Amino acid sequence: MNELPAQVNRLIELAIEEDLSTGDLTSDAVLDGNLEGAAIIEAREPLVCCGLAIARKVFECIGPGTAFTCLKSEGENVLEGQALARIQGSLGVILAGERTALNFLQRTCGVATLSRLYADRASGRTVILDSRKTVPGWRWLDKMAVRAGGCKNHRMGLYDGILIKDNHIAACGGIALAVERARRNAPQGMEIEIEVEDLNGLGEALKSGADVIMLDNFTPEEVSKAVGICAGRARLEVSGNIGLDNMETYLDAAKVDYMSVGALTHSARAVDIAMEIEADRE
Amino acid sequence: MNELPAQVNRLIELAIEEDLSTGDLTSDAVLDGNLEGAAIIEAREPLVCCGLAIARKVFECIGPGTAFTCLKSEGENVLEGQALARIQGSLGVILAGERTALNFLQRTCGVATLSRLYADRASGRTVILDSRKTVPGWRWLDKMAVRAGGCKNHRMGLYDGILIKDNHIAACGGIALAVERARRNAPQGMEIEIEVEDLNGLGEALKSGADVIMLDNFTPEEVSKAVGICAGRARLEVSGNIGLDNMETYLDAAKVDYMSVGALTHSARAVDIAMEIEADRE
Amino acid sequence: MNELPAQVNRLIELAIEEDLSTGDLTSDAVLDGNLEGAAIIEAREPLVCCGLAIARKVFECIGPGTAFTCLKSEGENVLEGQALARIQGSLGVILAGERTALNFLQRTCGVATLSRLYADRASGRTVILDSRKTVPGWRWLDKMAVRAGGCKNHRMGLYDGILIKDNHIAACGGIALAVERARRNAPQGMEIEIEVEDLNGLGEALKSGADVIMLDNFTPEEVSKAVGICAGRARLEVSGNIGLDNMETYLDAAKVDYMSVGALTHSARAVDIAMEIEADRE
Amino acid sequence: MNELPAQVNRLIELAIEEDLSTGDLTSDAVLDGNLEGAAIIEAREPLVCCGLAIARKVFECIGPGTAFTCLKSEGENVLEGQALARIQGSLGVILAGERTALNFLQRTCGVATLSRLYADRASGRTVILDSRKTVPGWRWLDKMAVRAGGCKNHRMGLYDGILIKDNHIAACGGIALAVERARRNAPQGMEIEIEVEDLNGLGEALKSGADVIMLDNFTPEEVSKAVGICAGRARLEVSGNIGLDNMETYLDAAKVDYMSVGALTHSARAVDIAMEIEADRE
Amino acid sequence: MNELPAQVNRLIELAIEEDLSTGDLTSDAVLDGNLEGAAIIEAREPLVCCGLAIARKVFECIGPGTAFTCLKSEGENVLEGQALARIQGSLGVILAGERTALNFLQRTCGVATLSRLYADRASGRTVILDSRKTVPGWRWLDKMAVRAGGCKNHRMGLYDGILIKDNHIAACGGIALAVERARRNAPQGMEIEIEVEDLNGLGEALKSGADVIMLDNFTPEEVSKAVGICAGRARLEVSGNIGLDNMETYLDAAKVDYMSVGALTHSARAVDIAMEIEADRE
Amino acid sequence: MNELPAQVNRLIELAIEEDLSTGDLTSDAVLDGNLEGAAIIEAREPLVCCGLAIARKVFECIGPGTAFTCLKSEGENVLEGQALARIQGSLGVILAGERTALNFLQRTCGVATLSRLYADRASGRTVILDSRKTVPGWRWLDKMAVRAGGCKNHRMGLYDGILIKDNHIAACGGIALAVERARRNAPQGMEIEIEVEDLNGLGEALKSGADVIMLDNFTPEEVSKAVGICAGRARLEVSGNIGLDNMETYLDAAKVDYMSVGALTHSARAVDIAMEIEADRE
Repeated sequence: MNELPAQVNRLIELAIEEDLSTGDLTSDAVLDGNLEGAAIIEAREPLVCCGLAIARKVFECIGPGTAFTCLKSEGENVLEGQALARIQGSLGVILAGERTALNFLQRTCGVATLSRLYADRASGRTVILDSRKTVPGWRWLDKMAVRAGGCKNHRMGLYDGILIKDNHIAACGGIALAVERARRNAPQGMEIEIEVEDLNGLGEALKSGADVIMLDNFTPEEVSKAVGICAGRARLEVSGNIGLDNMETYLDAAKVDYMSVGALTHSARAVDIAMEIEADRE
Repeated sequence: MNELPAQVNRLIELAIEEDLSTGDLTSDAVLDGNLEGAAIIEAREPLVCCGLAIARKVFECIGPGTAFTCLKSEGENVLEGQALARIQGSLGVILAGERTALNFLQRTCGVATLSRLYADRASGRTVILDSRKTVPGWRWLDKMAVRAGGCKNHRMGLYDGILIKDNHIAACGGIALAVERARRNAPQGMEIEIEVEDLNGLGEALKSGADVIMLDNFTPEEVSKAVGICAGRARLEVSGNIGLDNMETYLDAAKVDYMSVGALTHSARAVDIAMEIEADRE
Repeated sequence: MNELPAQVNRLIELAIEEDLSTGDLTSDAVLDGNLEGAAIIEAREPLVCCGLAIARKVFECIGPGTAFTCLKSEGENVLEGQALARIQGSLGVILAGERTALNFLQRTCGVATLSRLYADRASGRTVILDSRKTVPGWRWLDKMAVRAGGCKNHRMGLYDGILIKDNHIAACGGIALAVERARRNAPQGMEIEIEVEDLNGLGEALKSGADVIMLDNFTPEEVSKAVGICAGRARLEVSGNIGLDNMETYLDAAKVDYMSVGALTHSARAVDIAMEIEADRE
Repeated sequence: MNELPAQVNRLIELAIEEDLSTGDLTSDAVLDGNLEGAAIIEAREPLVCCGLAIARKVFECIGPGTAFTCLKSEGENVLEGQALARIQGSLGVILAGERTALNFLQRTCGVATLSRLYADRASGRTVILDSRKTVPGWRWLDKMAVRAGGCKNHRMGLYDGILIKDNHIAACGGIALAVERARRNAPQGMEIEIEVEDLNGLGEALKSGADVIMLDNFTPEEVSKAVGICAGRARLEVSGNIGLDNMETYLDAAKVDYMSVGALTHSARAVDIAMEIEADRE
Repeated sequence: MNELPAQVNRLIELAIEEDLSTGDLTSDAVLDGNLEGAAIIEAREPLVCCGLAIARKVFECIGPGTAFTCLKSEGENVLEGQALARIQGSLGVILAGERTALNFLQRTCGVATLSRLYADRASGRTVILDSRKTVPGWRWLDKMAVRAGGCKNHRMGLYDGILIKDNHIAACGGIALAVERARRNAPQGMEIEIEVEDLNGLGEALKSGADVIMLDNFTPEEVSKAVGICAGRARLEVSGNIGLDNMETYLDAAKVDYMSVGALTHSARAVDIAMEIEADRE
Repeated sequence: MNELPAQVNRLIELAIEEDLSTGDLTSDAVLDGNLEGAAIIEAREPLVCCGLAIARKVFECIGPGTAFTCLKSEGENVLEGQALARIQGSLGVILAGERTALNFLQRTCGVATLSRLYADRASGRTVILDSRKTVPGWRWLDKMAVRAGGCKNHRMGLYDGILIKDNHIAACGGIALAVERARRNAPQGMEIEIEVEDLNGLGEALKSGADVIMLDNFTPEEVSKAVGICAGRARLEVSGNIGLDNMETYLDAAKVDYMSVGALTHSARAVDIAMEIEADRE
């Protein structure tokens, strides 16, 4: 099943409309409308390939007959100078879609590339999770890129997972009550995760029967103690300002089930990808 | 006129739907639906304020009666720890909108903050322009943030400006022909801008009568020569891998009309902004 | 947070447009457009109240100024002849919205009423779950009504829960492999549920470490054996042609965690609800 | 012309999105994405076939290349165990569309089957009409199913027919005035129908020149008298709680032009239809 | 009930977006965003007022707080120089909406004014009907304007009326068969209208029992004969190139029920309406 | 690149839905659904061909398999009786799309035909521009037709051009200030045009450095003087009630760069185009 979710199609439409709107003035003014051409999308730095289906869709929406050939697969490591895809069709369509397609790919590959870095660093010692700190409108794409890079998704949004945070606990009057209410009211199939601020919170959370406990802003030492206290009664997730610089310290301190990293999506930079029109235009 | 363009409203709807979809499982499960609350959105680092109208709209869409008070104005410099806005209303609405509103603000303020840095560096010696290298779906917001930071917008998209690039020139058979066609076919009111690769191109472009000439990937020395050759016959735009590191060298080399910087939008990082629920909940 | 999900608003718009389209020919032709009126929506049989927010929205969409007062609350038992809500405003709006509002309420209350019957029968001996056998377009409303009646929701759709069925198992080459893949690939926070056809399947599923095991079309005797075999190692869900007639037999046979009942939504009948214009029209 | 109206396409999109949203977690986790398969949709009880174009569209939307072969035609009587359609394509697409397609068919065939029952009972002695008591969002589909079963449609909505009811009459100050206004203001081509409560009303309606008179909640005896009084001066429609149980009594009492039956759509039950994956998967 | 149909709201949104899109560059560049103002919309020639609700909606969509006061009512005759409405609010909003609002009004009033001319000429001797020759996207508005001018609407579209034309007759194999099929298959409440080319056709149509017969491109003499032949057995509609020049000849020749005039909508010219900003701006 | 902008596709959808909505009652009732046919769209008067892509799209939307062959090209002069296009496919689809396709073509060709008349009259002595006085919803189509007729487009809307009018000048406090602000705030690439009422205004505008100056409601004599005063320092546009009758006087008086003519779009009449079903139906 290769179809994209409705929300992704809406984003692609929006992206095309914001760039193209009533037409490409320059190409309409200077190009012969019947010109055909071909182009290569290529990596200008090493990266993890992700999002070619989106680029393909961009060209298909702008010019239905355009041929788009993937030359790399999702999640594949790509070297500088290697081609990701080849496009063939109306030159006007290729030029009209160029910037939008590249803008998509530079971020999807960027997030995948950063995620790969984290996944490789963890090398199986924990599972790296993403967060909801994604670019608005890009939730699904950002999370797709995280998977392509080898990390795992936390819940997609507020609607498909339970995560009880400090404000919920405060409003409920305590961890025990919050978990109890969640257990009673959550749909069948949803685990209960709760965020705790310190070891006292951890103790309460363990008593409450939460499935997963998020250790928020714990130091490596605190994490280590937490793992000992928990003793397998719940799964543990370390969270809060984890980066490539301090990740190793956490991994050394203790073995936790998950490490969630907002940076995968909120700090990924656009990687350098360009399009080259093939000289020998048909 | 404070209304947002249709394309921005579509992005906001998309962002809310991707996070909230069928509802906030956690709040629905653990919170009393009648709880009221208030929260402060605050800067966790120095930044340029931008995008509060978007954050307001997010909360209004989720819970129409929510009160959102701006405490800073667009383009204002904000210190670490200062509040940007205060929200009052249903606690469930505030928590449901928190992440989406912050995700928007962290990027709008991020782009504005970076743009301010560039504008300050230029300090009037040239006009800093953005590019079309924006996050798909975010064209208008990214460009709004560029203006808030003190830079100026290049065309919004393919539809509202003429920029003849190398592929157009190749397809047309030369600069002269391309500019001539553009002049004949462009709508009234559009200037003709053309991109050139070297000083030969500049010479042809000047002869063709282009209004603006983009010097693509010129060294500072070449730019200096170009300014001399041009002698005011067209406006000049320097473009290609300009960053905070090499900007000064360009500014020293020659006075050009515009310097376009893709990094304003493709490399802006999310700034740190957080929401705090006020302790004394009503 | 009282706002309805986007998908419900889309259904309401669709429902209004399909009935009203270019206008109410009869009222436009025969009524004075300035007439005001009031009406009562009342139960013509005992029922569980559910969906007044939808009815309110219908009238608000047709005539923004219409006042809609709820006289019963969600999940409340209502006697024959009791009023559910009162509407006041333009007579033309009230008549234009009447049929659409009633068509919504007759089903939402119908599903809630049937769900209440099941929940009361179970009286805490198990948790009654719904299924995905809802009227297309009505998923969220049908599930809202199930909750109003006192039962609990299974996953909302394919996107927020894992349920491995016979075809998945066949395609994977066995229960163990299917559960292992699901565990590896599912997002954090999702339990793994698997459907089994017989006690052999149950054994394999227990070994595989599934969180919930659905006993599909088991007889009460088989369920009883399954509970013994399971011995608390997983939660159990009984499924397949459970109705009010045979439910007691199952409940007597063994204590399972869940009983899922497609009939809650696929066989609920519309309950009788009518609107009466108040005689003393203003 | 086989295209579906825009409103039906909107319902289908809604139905797919509410079930599939961001994707099918289970299939994505456990299935090999390249698996192909085939399935049969079959009747588990005798029914009237209706709505295969909708089921086809569901699969086409989820996976454009899916082949859907109709094995029965609209309105055809189908025996228990007979196949309605065969689907071939990606196994993931088939499983993703299964529930939504079946949910559609179970209702469309259900309404058609019930309508056939009524049409057969009437066996030409009157024309059975439907009403606006349809499931919101389903107006066109419910009415399509009524026709497939052999009954006839009353107006589609408020916009394409004139039906003056008691509240209109009261607001107008009488039957004569209401009909006169309707005649003057209705668009060309619309007949005027009016609802009456008793024989006095019938007399007035006949004098007013209405084209069709709806006898609301008349007993069979009253209907018989009404037919005599009317003497062909208008067409008559019997309405109000007509069911399979009392229909014969009415048909025996008198020959009326139309009998409108809300139950066709508000009380049709889902018929049993299932999908079987073919064992020998390609 | 003052709400506009969904299709009109879609047209208004489209009209605003096509003009305003990403914003009003001129006002944004030169105006102080806080300026308030007021303006008058006035007739520059005598006209029939129609469509103020559309103009109001345009300003409400662009700037929700704008006050729009109607100074004339729908269908009212307006003299040159008289004001139709007054607008007060943000000057930026008023200027942004000016052209779109005027473009709407100039056509709605134009169609109403022309329709008034036809209705006055007919002065009760026949009913003037419109046709489906409306500007695409404007069906409802064009027909609203026809009514405001004092004429009557033919069917709104293909979906709410039966009109059998020559191609239908040819494909069916004759008038009798076509009418018979229409009678059997049309929904309850729809009259059957058929178009005939000559008096032979009229004879067949009368025998077939059609409710309304359209005399297409008949000369006044032929119409006169047709009326005699018909002798009240059906209603007659004269159609085909009726204009203000030849209308009187037809009216003199014979009394027919309807005269349909495509020119009402396909040949109405825009009337002259302008907006004046009030000098004394607040 | 032949794809239509999103806004045009939205108009086409709207046009189809307003006419077809829930279906073509007449064809559904009287035609055999399997009938195939062919038809010719032909000019009933001399005209300039424009908009065939829109007509094609109408038929494609209604019946995807329909073949539409263009027999004339955009901008081509067509004689009375010549065919513009041929359509082949389902007879039901052809009849369902007929009126909508013709309604589109009659206006697009109408605007193109009138524009050709103006362009021919100018015969290169000036450039004829259109205005924003287009039919709401039709901006892009009206401007496409203007180009097909040989005239040139002014800005598409408020968002892609700067035109400072009297109200802007008044609100700013003068021409100099208004132009200065526009120059500072306009995006790169936009020229500054300003409207002036008299020769004093022209003087100020020239001093302000505006790129284009619109001479609003100037007499031919005043235009002549203006050209002398301007002496090439800015481009000049004559505007205000220019028609075919007085155009020559203006052209004789002086050579200006542009002449803008609202009448191109606000006063174009529908040209006569008809569809004929081919007798020899397959």
